[in-house]
Parts: sequence; structure tokens; C-alpha cells
Amino acid sequence: MYVPKFNEEKDVSILHSLVRSKPLGAWATIADGEIVINHIPFILHESRGDLGTLVGHVARSNTIFNDFSTEVNSVVVFQGDQAYITPSWYPSKHKHGMAVPTWNYVVVHAHGIPRKIEDPEWLLQHLNELTDTHEKEQKLPWKVSDAPDDFIEKLIGAIVGIEIPISKLTGKWKLGQNRPDPDKIGTIAGLVSSDSPESHGLAKLLNQHLLASKKS
Amino acid sequence: MYVPKFNEEKDVSILHSLVRSKPLGAWATIADGEIVINHIPFILHESRGDLGTLVGHVARSNTIFNDFSTEVNSVVVFQGDQAYITPSWYPSKHKHGMAVPTWNYVVVHAHGIPRKIEDPEWLLQHLNELTDTHEKEQKLPWKVSDAPDDFIEKLIGAIVGIEIPISKLTGKWKLGQNRPDPDKIGTIAGLVSSDSPESHGLAKLLNQHLLASKKS
Repeated sequence: MYVPKFNEEKDVSILHSLVRSKPLGAWATIADGEIVINHIPFILHESRGDLGTLVGHVARSNTIFNDFSTEVNSVVVFQGDQAYITPSWYPSKHKHGMAVPTWNYVVVHAHGIPRKIEDPEWLLQHLNELTDTHEKEQKLPWKVSDAPDDFIEKLIGAIVGIEIPISKLTGKWKLGQNRPDPDKIGTIAGLVSSDSPESHGLAKLLNQHLLASKKS
Repeated sequence: MYVPKFNEEKDVSILHSLVRSKPLGAWATIADGEIVINHIPFILHESRGDLGTLVGHVARSNTIFNDFSTEVNSVVVFQGDQAYITPSWYPSKHKHGMAVPTWNYVVVHAHGIPRKIEDPEWLLQHLNELTDTHEKEQKLPWKVSDAPDDFIEKLIGAIVGIEIPISKLTGKWKLGQNRPDPDKIGTIAGLVSSDSPESHGLAKLLNQHLLASKKS
């Protein structure tokens, strides 16, 4: 991914935080010479390896678990907020007209060589962890043990675990950090006036960047 | 991408509609033997080719315009709405317990071999089209011609056009279409009770599917 220096987010804890909040990763690998992409809700084991390890599963009927490349790095995309940015929001545009539209977004790419896991004990533990992570926001959290044992056993036979130790982690925080301060303030105001939660998310990030740049 | 039959969306007009509404595509290609993914706001030329043609541009400083594979198909991912689905929403779970959580989402994958375009006339027309498409929702739509000519000329020298004629278009509409009707109704109710617009979007799609299945 092309990342200009001013759009680079290097803080691993910030990148991990996006992976946790938007865990449906687009997992790209090579199989039979073609690019194959599947969408997997990943769990992040932050302290396994220097940059963490992604853990998920696929249906056994999804042949990718046998076909993924162990030679070419997989890339898993975690997409955060995004919004169209009109130059009308920039004071500089009204001053000298030298502005064009763009698209702002935050995205994390995790690179690594996957491995598959078929051990039923591991798979049960993985399902418990995945479930407990996402159910904790429910009023009455559901647990894997709420389902009949033989049903879960059958289910475990129908999935295969995937682990991707992260060897490279890239964050592109495309927020317009390279624009003059008045344009940043205009962008924040424009994003906040939208009724999209994604625009509000980007406004918050750009505001944080602006405040941090004042302090340094 | 693994797509069970009941999750397959084959209606090209529906797939095109998602591409238009979520145009920031994750463009995956091979360069120097590695998977490289860049995020590009695409315009869709629906009637060029059987399945349409994606049109976008990258910064000239993004070397991918020289490096992308013309032998392996690119895959461009257009991600629609997504939401975690708790089995607590399923009446069947309360009856016999045989249910587990899942993630619902809609996504389009467009496959094809890209080509680059460096003609300044083409690039100007492309910028006009991209701008006019996204500015039409603004109160006072900005136009490329609002910017000074020499500024736009310089800008055009700093970008390279990318076209991807779509040779395969796949839609995965993972909505729980395989669940019994009461579970679908429970899922719709659960999604609607969320305050996320993405959940509301998925509820609408599942409701459309439920109504269509009653008619057929």
C-alpha cells in the first residue's frame, strides 16, 4: 500500500485498536496462482509475536484452508471510517481555489504467513474466545456452552482454524494531515455536520491530530 | 471468495448499486511476487463491457501503476454493511439451543486485468466525472473548473489513470438466508434495535429477502 509519510500511523497500539473495533478482515492470499479474498471476523492476540497474531476460522467447505500460499505473505485489510471530502470545506479553496476533492479513510494492513489448525480442543477454545469477545456487549451474553454439546461438536468438525502471525503491520491514516490548519478545521466542521457516524469518527481523529500537532 | 449458494447475489444491477454507494474499493494486485492492496475511489462505467469497467487513478508517486500484474487478475473489494449477529435474536435458539453467533455482511468482488492511462485529456475528463459524481450531493457543488487551470494541469501530471474492465463480478450477501423464517424476523428486529446505520442497512436487505421469498 502506498502511504505518504504524513499519512503513516506507526503506533502499534492504535493499529491494534482499529483491528479490535473493526474485526471483519478482508484476508487476501494466493491460491492456484490467483488472488483469493475471504472476509473473516478475526480475534487479535496482541502479545503473541512482536506485532500480534490474527486468529480466525473458515468453513471446512471453503477450500482456501488447504490452498492458501505459505510462500507469499497474506494481507489482511481492516477498514476503519471513510468519507468523501469536498474542497468546499477548505478556507484555502475560497482564498486561492487551489484545492481538489479527496477521500479520507483509516485502514490497517496486516501481513503474514498463515497456518491452519484442526485440533478440536483449539477450535472449541477459539469459538469460546470469539463468542465471549462479541457477546460481552449484549445484555444477556450468550455462551458456547448454552448450545447442546453434540451440536457444538458437529460444528467444530465443520470449521478449520486460521492463525496469521503478523510480520508487518501498516496503518494509513488519510486525514488531510498535509493541509494547512484552517483547512483541517474546515474539514472537521464539515465532517461533524454530516449525519454519518463514519464522518464523525474521522472528525475526531483529525481533531486529535490537530491538537497533538499544537503540543509538539 | 467462498460463497454458499444461498448467499450468492447474482443480479448485476444490485452489485453495481453497491459499487456506486460504497465506491472506495480495496484494489488487490500482485507486484514483485507480493500481494499489494491500495484503496481507490472508483467510478463505475456500467455499460462498458458485459459487467462494467472500474475507473480510478493513483498518485504517480505510487509505483503500483507501473508494477501491477497484467497476468493475474486484480480483485477489487467493495465492502457494504456489516454487523455481528448474536444467536440471542433467534427464536430457535430459545427453543432448542442449536445456534451460534455469526457475522453478516454484503460485499462485492470485481475481478479483471487493469490498464494504466497517462493521457492528460483522459485524466481531466476522469477528474471531472469523479468530482461531479460526488459533488452532486453538496449544496453548492464544486467543479474542477473552479480551480486555476495551471493548478489542475500540475495535478494531472501527478496522477495516473487506472481502468479495470470487469471479467468476473461476485456478490456475497451474507444475511442468514439459510435460517428459518422466525430467526430471520428475530435478526431483523435485533438489527433494527441497534443504533448503527450498517445494522439498519442489513435489516432492510434481510427484510427484502424475506418478502421476496414469500412471493415466490
